[in-house]
Amino acid sequence: MANPVKLYNHPIAPSARRVRIFMAEKGIKLALEEVDVLAGEARTPEFLAKNSSGGVPVLEFDDGSYLSESVAICRYLEGLHPEPNLFGRELSEQCEIERWNRRMELELFGAIGRTAQNTSPIFASRFKQFPEYGEVQRAAALARLERMDRELDGRPFVAGERFTIADITALCAIDIGRVVANIELAPAWRNLARWHTAVSSRPSAKA
Amino acid sequence: MANPVKLYNHPIAPSARRVRIFMAEKGIKLALEEVDVLAGEARTPEFLAKNSSGGVPVLEFDDGSYLSESVAICRYLEGLHPEPNLFGRELSEQCEIERWNRRMELELFGAIGRTAQNTSPIFASRFKQFPEYGEVQRAAALARLERMDRELDGRPFVAGERFTIADITALCAIDIGRVVANIELAPAWRNLARWHTAVSSRPSAKA
Repeated sequence: MANPVKLYNHPIAPSARRVRIFMAEKGIKLALEEVDVLAGEARTPEFLAKNSSGGVPVLEFDDGSYLSESVAICRYLEGLHPEPNLFGRELSEQCEIERWNRRMELELFGAIGRTAQNTSPIFASRFKQFPEYGEVQRAAALARLERMDRELDGRPFVAGERFTIADITALCAIDIGRVVANIELAPAWRNLARWHTAVSSRPSAKA
Repeated sequence: MANPVKLYNHPIAPSARRVRIFMAEKGIKLALEEVDVLAGEARTPEFLAKNSSGGVPVLEFDDGSYLSESVAICRYLEGLHPEPNLFGRELSEQCEIERWNRRMELELFGAIGRTAQNTSPIFASRFKQFPEYGEVQRAAALARLERMDRELDGRPFVAGERFTIADITALCAIDIGRVVANIELAPAWRNLARWHTAVSSRPSAKA
């Protein structure tokens, strides 16, 4: 089995942060190589040979192979370093965590990303923006956060009693939404605030 | 471990079809209960108690519990019925398949879905549509299909040498794109045509 030697990274890219937090939770240390995504460094022929979709994170192995897609990278790292478990142990727990990770990704992260792409000056030169569509996506993101507040009533973490990859996905989505889309957590969302403070206080959140 | 007894289904919904094809590949037979999603039956309080996100597919278990999200359902079924394997065996293969399944979902299925939501009369009463944004998404879907044609040059299936969940995701995305977004495969895409004929000819494609 090939061993990972390097992670191609960007300090702000939320999917790269997902992998860095995942690594920090497991105590995995890898060399980071910074890729200036906004300057187009992930779209060069050299980089597309590592990840044909262009973008970070990408994991490099000691046999010269590469793996992209944050969740695929995390799953590989979980296989190499099973503890602490972040994807679930028995089958039903694995699937429950997958369900919540997908909800956070498809329902929350997706809406936040489309808000940013269509409203943030950061993306104005990279995408044709549709600000009115972006506002519809902002409303969807806020509605999903409000629902998340209800889901976290009496539940410590996104997928249940313990910290999992679903919390990492949600944290990275929410934090990037504040920075690039001005999506703030409403003060009334007490459960969400309690969860956000808890996951942000973990040492891994600084990774 | 709980046993699945029923799948809440819709004949057209692509994510429900993903699970039906997955089941057919494994020879799994389950009762189907049809949910008229377009008539709002997935948004009733009774149904939201089964899947708080509203929508199909949802798997019902003999202990009265439920699992939603198509990939989570497929993973559960893979655990119960490991053969034929559709998620990968050893770790590196699992992660390679996950990478390709995510690409097909996020890059292809996502763009096709946003095209349909913003341009199809089917969704006109359910979403505020942004037709110009929909056309940008259509262009993204077509560009991804063109890239997929190149990826399938000399490669029998999406993730490599054998049929996996990534093929199911791509097939359901492409077929629904034809129906609800008029996204057709260009005749020049010979590799994609060969792949589409091959996967459509499997008995599971009729599930």
